[in-house]
Amino acid sequence: MKVAFQGTKGAYSEEALKRYFGDSATPVGFELSEQVGDALEAGEVAMGILPVENSIAGNVAINMDLLYQHNFFVIGELYLPIHHCLMARPGVKLEDIKSVHSHPVALEQCRDFLNRHNIRPIPDFDTAGASKNLVARKSKDQGTISSRLCSEYYGLEILDDDVQKVKHNITRFQVFVKESNIPDGILQEKTSIAFTTKHHPGALLGCLQEFAKADINLTRLESRPIPENPFAYIFFVDFMGALNDTKVKETLLNLRNDAEHIKVLGSYPIASK
Amino acid sequence: MKVAFQGTKGAYSEEALKRYFGDSATPVGFELSEQVGDALEAGEVAMGILPVENSIAGNVAINMDLLYQHNFFVIGELYLPIHHCLMARPGVKLEDIKSVHSHPVALEQCRDFLNRHNIRPIPDFDTAGASKNLVARKSKDQGTISSRLCSEYYGLEILDDDVQKVKHNITRFQVFVKESNIPDGILQEKTSIAFTTKHHPGALLGCLQEFAKADINLTRLESRPIPENPFAYIFFVDFMGALNDTKVKETLLNLRNDAEHIKVLGSYPIASK
Repeated sequence: MKVAFQGTKGAYSEEALKRYFGDSATPVGFELSEQVGDALEAGEVAMGILPVENSIAGNVAINMDLLYQHNFFVIGELYLPIHHCLMARPGVKLEDIKSVHSHPVALEQCRDFLNRHNIRPIPDFDTAGASKNLVARKSKDQGTISSRLCSEYYGLEILDDDVQKVKHNITRFQVFVKESNIPDGILQEKTSIAFTTKHHPGALLGCLQEFAKADINLTRLESRPIPENPFAYIFFVDFMGALNDTKVKETLLNLRNDAEHIKVLGSYPIASK
Repeated sequence: MKVAFQGTKGAYSEEALKRYFGDSATPVGFELSEQVGDALEAGEVAMGILPVENSIAGNVAINMDLLYQHNFFVIGELYLPIHHCLMARPGVKLEDIKSVHSHPVALEQCRDFLNRHNIRPIPDFDTAGASKNLVARKSKDQGTISSRLCSEYYGLEILDDDVQKVKHNITRFQVFVKESNIPDGILQEKTSIAFTTKHHPGALLGCLQEFAKADINLTRLESRPIPENPFAYIFFVDFMGALNDTKVKETLLNLRNDAEHIKVLGSYPIASK
């Protein structure tokens, strides 16, 4: 079974994919999130996996938009702890390293470590791509910061395996299929929806009240500006409960009093953090 | 009066600063947002300006965290339309350009344009830094994508002034001072607060109900994972009304029934979009 992720071979997204699917999936990497969406629409892959939030950086807005725009259905979630590893070609030691290539955000998160070791950060498009490029350059004084998986794929040696400053760096991924292809027997414990509110005062409050009345516990609430209509908002809500629960069904019906457009994004088992 | 921003000379943040302050401020650029905070704490600058949300990318989470953690007070906001300009050294024509250097996000937003002109994107730490570096390299076949301001600062020629795909790309900035230094006579039309909720069901709803009861209109609601405590949330709320309005004061008092910790971030005039 082919599963699409965004990134170069060895990206954190592929690490998430492997952790979720084990050996039951063949990872297919795409340069852009929208290509992941297109491949799933076209039936080239059976499923997709994309990051939707990170404990440091917040929302991954473009992926939330993608799930909102397509007719996909989320069937699973995964929390991946991000451990930035410093790696280099075999034989290269930490004290040999003069520069480290990686994505600007990863370099920023490891700034203290790099300063301490007098290593110059050099930006690249992505963490895994930087590792791939390093091998081609055959450099003896360069390193990269990327996922553990990259060391296996590109034959690099890990010199330190947790070099970021903030240790609780966790990314949440969602796994999704085409709405017309939802597998049977998915355990529904948690549901993700998105909605826009009607244009009357207190409409958002009205929506949230419906959840409270039904005693449904919200686990996430995000407002997201609507692309092409800046600063009008779509609300993304995750809550406990299956889409086919009677009280969830009733709540979604009642939501229509205050919500303009409601989109069910999926219903899936709770992942451990 | 010195005002701190994050970025290299010519960054979009400096463009926002200049638009907000005109000639009444001397911009001081810092590499990191936290250095902007530190400079303001230390009294090295009178004010700071930082981006807090973008219509495409969503929250600027690290800056929201910064305003939450320091004792600063927001006294203004500004919406800056982002127009990515393609520029190069004088005399270089569009058809000469083989590669363009910029921040990966800016390159991504201009991908269609770059593909159309067969130009290779090359990542750099930031848009303005890429323009600064280009001058030093004296290249005749390279360009950068950055703000209009960079063309003035670095003597580059603008070859096209709106090369991003999504035209409505707007960043919202907030201007802030130390809480002990709030200038007199700031028009308060809009207030920003952040709060955590108590650990009982419906606490968030309870908080939002207080605003509805007082007929206070929310203009922004964001949940933000608490750093070092992933997936517990701080809520960032903007609403119409001055901090010293009686009904706002009462609402903030009532909020304490359901909110654990409330932090007032500021109160300021509404900016036009």
